[in-house]
This record gives sequence, C-alpha cells and structure tokens, in this order.
Amino acid sequence: MTKPMGAIPAEFQAEAGVLAIGGRRADALAEEAGGTPLFVYDFEMVRRRVECFRSAFRGINLHYAIKANTYSPLLKVIEKIVDGLDVASEGEMHAALAAGADAADISFAGPGKTDAELEAAIDAGVTLNLESEGEAERALGIARRRGRRARLAIRVNPDFEIRGSGMRMGGGAKPFGVDAERVPALVRRLVEAEADWRGFHIFAGSQALDADALIEAQRATIALAAALAERAGHAPPLVNLGGGFGIPYFAGERPLDIEKVAASLHEALAARPKILADSGFAIELGRWLVGEAGVYLTRIVDRKQSHGKPFLVVDGGMHHQLAASGNFGQVVRRNYPVTIATRFGAAPEEEATIVGCLCTPLDRLGDDVMLPRAEIGDLVAVFLAGAYGLSASPQAFLGHRPALEMLVGTGN
Amino acid sequence: MTKPMGAIPAEFQAEAGVLAIGGRRADALAEEAGGTPLFVYDFEMVRRRVECFRSAFRGINLHYAIKANTYSPLLKVIEKIVDGLDVASEGEMHAALAAGADAADISFAGPGKTDAELEAAIDAGVTLNLESEGEAERALGIARRRGRRARLAIRVNPDFEIRGSGMRMGGGAKPFGVDAERVPALVRRLVEAEADWRGFHIFAGSQALDADALIEAQRATIALAAALAERAGHAPPLVNLGGGFGIPYFAGERPLDIEKVAASLHEALAARPKILADSGFAIELGRWLVGEAGVYLTRIVDRKQSHGKPFLVVDGGMHHQLAASGNFGQVVRRNYPVTIATRFGAAPEEEATIVGCLCTPLDRLGDDVMLPRAEIGDLVAVFLAGAYGLSASPQAFLGHRPALEMLVGTGN
Repeated sequence: MTKPMGAIPAEFQAEAGVLAIGGRRADALAEEAGGTPLFVYDFEMVRRRVECFRSAFRGINLHYAIKANTYSPLLKVIEKIVDGLDVASEGEMHAALAAGADAADISFAGPGKTDAELEAAIDAGVTLNLESEGEAERALGIARRRGRRARLAIRVNPDFEIRGSGMRMGGGAKPFGVDAERVPALVRRLVEAEADWRGFHIFAGSQALDADALIEAQRATIALAAALAERAGHAPPLVNLGGGFGIPYFAGERPLDIEKVAASLHEALAARPKILADSGFAIELGRWLVGEAGVYLTRIVDRKQSHGKPFLVVDGGMHHQLAASGNFGQVVRRNYPVTIATRFGAAPEEEATIVGCLCTPLDRLGDDVMLPRAEIGDLVAVFLAGAYGLSASPQAFLGHRPALEMLVGTGN
Repeated sequence: MTKPMGAIPAEFQAEAGVLAIGGRRADALAEEAGGTPLFVYDFEMVRRRVECFRSAFRGINLHYAIKANTYSPLLKVIEKIVDGLDVASEGEMHAALAAGADAADISFAGPGKTDAELEAAIDAGVTLNLESEGEAERALGIARRRGRRARLAIRVNPDFEIRGSGMRMGGGAKPFGVDAERVPALVRRLVEAEADWRGFHIFAGSQALDADALIEAQRATIALAAALAERAGHAPPLVNLGGGFGIPYFAGERPLDIEKVAASLHEALAARPKILADSGFAIELGRWLVGEAGVYLTRIVDRKQSHGKPFLVVDGGMHHQLAASGNFGQVVRRNYPVTIATRFGAAPEEEATIVGCLCTPLDRLGDDVMLPRAEIGDLVAVFLAGAYGLSASPQAFLGHRPALEMLVGTGN
C-alpha cells in the first residue's frame, strides 16, 4: 500500500525535467561537485527566510542556532545576515568565530560544559548561557582567575513547554537550565560577583507548527522573564525567547503561520511589564532557517525486485541522513519528501522503496512511495536535508565514503 | 519512579571500589588514554567468546562481521583468531586487509555496491556476496574486462526470518539478497560464466536471544541451501548460515543458550541432505563477539537538581553512543546497563538521570536509574558499548571533541 510522504517545498522546480536547486540542475550540480552522495544548500532560500522573519518580526533580533548546519561556506554567509550565532560546544564556538562573528554576538548554551570550554568562551568574550548554579560558580571562578569579566546569561528551565512541540525542552524536571524559582537568586549572585549579566535564555520547545501553541509559549516566556527580573531586582539586557519554529516534514503537516505569531508577539511586547522596557528580545532559529534549503542527492546503484516490490538502492543512506531513515528521535518512521531528481515532475508510475547502501534494515529513505519509474544512474533527492542532516548522522558507520557538500544561491 | 536497566556483564568486577576492565581500573585507563570520553575494549573477553564458540560449534567456521567494531588495534587481534572477516563497504574491505586478513577470507556484502567497489573487490580477490541479479551482471562484466575470475557468493533472501529477531533481515520483500526462487537460475548463470562460485549467504535476522528461534532458522537455512543447490544442480562450497546471536541489553533479557543452538546445529548438519555433504559452513557474528567487551567511560561535569530530581551531566553522550540514548532502531527507549565506575559495587542510594553534554533532550544515557551518589569528576560507565557504538553514532553532531578508544586484555 502506498505510504504518504511530506510535501516538497514549493521553491523547487523542474528545469527540462530535472530538479533545479538554486536555479541549477541537480545532475549538473552532482557533476560539478565530483559525484554523489551530495548535500546541496540553497542560500537564496535561507536569505528569503531571513527576509520573511525580518519583515514580520521588526525589532526582534534573529539568532542562528548553528547546530542545525555548520557547513562553513553556508555559515559564513548566514553570519552576515543575522544578529547573532548560538553555539552548543567549543567546536561550534570556533566555527562561529571562524565564520566572522563577533564574540559579543555569540552565545554558548549546553549542559556539561567542561572547565576548558568555559575558559575558552570567557577568554574569547562569548556569552555563556549558564545551565546550573554549579556551572555559574565554575564560570565565575575561571573569570576571576583569568582577570576577566565574564558575559553570563541564565538559561531558565520554564514551568511550561510549547504544546505539541516536536521536542520538549522545558516543563518539569529537565537537564537544561535552572529551575525558574531558583533563577532570581542566581541573577543576584551574578550581579554581586560583578559579572556582565546578559539576561535570560528561555527555550520551551522546538519543531512547533501550531502558531497558537507558540504564541502561548512566547507570552508565558515574556511573563516569566518579567517575574524573574522583578524578583531578582534587575532588568535583563536581553531576553532570548528561544525558537521552536518548525517546518513541515510529513504528510498532513502545514507550515507555521509566522505572521500570526509575529502579530501576537508584537502585541505582547507592546504590553510588556515595565521592568522589560529596555530589554532587547531575540529569537533563535536553526531548522526553520536552513532545513528546507538543503537537498540530499544520491544516485541509484541498483534496481531490484523482491516479492514483486521494486527496491531502488542508492549510494547514500542513513549514515548521511539519519533523520530521514526515521532513527533520530522519531517514534514511528514516516516518509520525508523524496523524488527522482532526474525525472522531476514526471507522473508517478510505481510504488517503490528507496533504501540506502548500508547493510541494515534501518537504512530506508522512502518506504512504499509513488514515483516515476527510475533506473540505475537516476538521482534521488531527499528534501528537508538542510538541518540536522549530515552532522547529525553516523557518518563513519560501515566505512562508506563521506558525503559531499555544496553551496548554491549566493549570487556569485 | 526508578526504571530498570539491563544487567552488567558478570566479567566486570571492582578493584578497590573502581570498575576494572581487563584487570585495570577505569580511572587509571582514562588517565593513560588522556581523558574522557573513552571507549575501552577488553580483548580477553572477545577471546573467551571465540573459545566458547569454538568449543560449542566444532567444525563450523567463525566469521567476524567487522561492522560491529572496526577499531583497528582490535580488528588486528580478532583477525588472528577467526576464520574470516565479513565487510560491508570498500572502506571496511581495506580495513580488513590492513588488519592482515587474506583476501580469500574476506567476503563483502551490502546492497548498493557501486562499480568502483565491485572492481576493487574483484581486483583484491575478495568474495562478493551478490545482492541482486543486476549486481551479478555488473560483477561478471567487470571481471571479464579486468581478466579476472571473480569470487562470487549469492546472498539469498529467505522466505523466513528468525522469530523475535531484533532486526528482520529476511522474510517477504526485502532489499537484501535475491529472492530464494530466483537463486537457482543465478547459480547456473555464475557457473556458466566461469565465475568462482563460493556458495550461499543466508541471513535471517539479528540480535536473537531465543535459542529455539535460532535453531528453527538454522534448520530452515540448511534446508533452503540444499533445495536451492538441488534445483541449481551445483553444490555450494560454503554456506554462510548468517549470525543473529544476540546479547542481553535490557532488564529481563537473558543470554542466548549457545550450547543448545550448537547441539541442534550439529544434529541438523549430521542429517544434512547429500548435496551439502562437502560444503563448508560458517556463522557470521559481530555483536555477540564484541558487544559486551566494550565500555564507554564518560566523566561527570555537572550535578544538578531540577524539580527535585538529580541530573548527572557527563562529557560524552549520544554523539558517541547513539544506541544507548535509544535512537538507533529502538521504538521505546530503555536503559542500557550503566554505573558509576569510580564507585563500583557501592550501594545504590539515589535515583538519578544521566544525560550527555549535547543540547538536545534526546541525549540521555540513563533514565531514572538507582545509583550510588556521584559527584563531579566521577566516571560513568555505559556497558555493552563494544558493538555499534562509536562508529554507529553521529560523532560530528554539535562539534564536541572526538571520543578516545583503547584496547586492553591483549596480554602485552
């Protein structure tokens, strides 16, 4: 029985029957890159996403959570059009600095920061989003020993989370941030220790497609930031409202209504408590900025029948695109949008299963999907590969060759 | 509520209150390796597994499926005590050759072999386990063009699978191998093309703990090999019976009864059809040989409370040990056996959650497990990390530093 797949982003069009990415044919891109498997990222799509954000969320800072995609040519051009880069390790911090970001525009979140990481961040002048009181004391001690004034924000574990969020990052006992009720004391501790207190980081979930759920979380976040500031007796310079903007991966999912979220946020900010009057606000996005801009191209190496079912075996697989195989946090495997890139727009003719080249039944990129008939040599495109793709996959698994990456749409 | 965890393999004992691996204290190993996170593999445990196999399965060849663990110092010593190495990519083939294996003792399975991979294997003299008729024709063509006689075995997609198998690799429409009913014609084709036909590779599942299910599958495999040989009119030089021997990961699971499987297999082979009289038989094992011999050591960087629950945050995580986080083929996350290595054998005092350093709620190594009270600096051990550990994990995810690896128990 044919299984549904998610929608192919509307930006992708055919050029002479071949999928075009950034206005260029997939087959030509693969040839230029030197083969497949290949990730192609279209910067033009990212730029349009940023513009869309800018026009809706006037006055709100836009941060890029680089964990979504750290491919350095892409990072360099994104850095120029956002207000800050959020990183989750010392390695990402160095990637952000190498991409040209000012240390003052980088913030570093993540549980389990080692002393060496805290020291590197403090020396570089990067803002640390503190995940616990213990981490705060370690950071203060390191700053004291190094004779530096550390830039420190507090990550808050809120008592709420985005309803229907793809990943729950707040609400109840969590490894992230400091429980809200203990935050005011920590703010006072930082201010008394003469740290450069940068404000709050409040992240209530991710991959949300329901505007009302996001609106509710953003309103609760502003109220929480104000209440914590009141109780601390200090106004936060910046409130990072988190992100959580999702993209539709699967059949039946619809894009988030950004205009609605923005309108509500402006209303909430206009009515915000006085203590936040001079605070800046930021939204931190990863997946929403880059997820749809990436396409994973992999070539059909074998076409075979088993018990009457056609299987298309490709030269890539879950070692490059783990999430599309259904093994990255999903409970039930569902189909990402996939297509035959070299027969793009052709009428679907057969129900086929696309499997990767790994010798494991987990390596499935498209399960019982309707496709034009494809042959050996055709290119398969797996969409929504721009975020949590290659870097979030077990690249060394089974010793296959690495994937290539390529940036298009930079106008050069 | 405390959640159960799997059993710690009985080989691991305390030395002065610290977990010993290969007779050496975990803290000393971490110091010698240069820190954490660190995988330690105990070759002595692997050697004992091989001996256990040898004494039970007399006359059966033992192959190591290197995809389970390709750490080169380990591979080199395993190579010396098994009869063959099974590989799943050209990269693994080169690793097997570099470990000292003879090409004649290497077989290469896996869907999606490219022409370049087929050529490399044929040039090296490695046996190819053919996954489809198309692949067979490509291999024959390449051998002809290179003036070589290719070593070719046929991977069969059997009509059965191991009941209760952790991963289903046979039965119904599958991407692996050639459907049984088409195999005799392919055998004849290979023989007529004057290839060096090596026999059958029949893999019906993996991670089985039920001896009766394995026995049933092995008996069916022998019957199938005989029936295919009869219909082809050619006796297979070798029948690779697959593997499928599981190890207990989770609470309530019990080790496979090897003696029972072996006794039944000897009985089945003694009564085998005449056409298989001169055939050799092999069992191909990965996880069962190395899985329990590996321990992942990671250091506690932060200890924090959230809503009354203690969280131990470590310097490692799912980027090194994806399976233990529940994100590698599992439907529901369950706890691998974990312990505080530096307080090994101490009485459990508190229910804690062990999380990795990644900024994602997926990064969980132990969920509500009873442990001795641990502090920053203590080492956490995650057991059953010898197979599908580091190489099956998204090591680049979030840009943390790589894990270290170390081999002990080689008697040097």
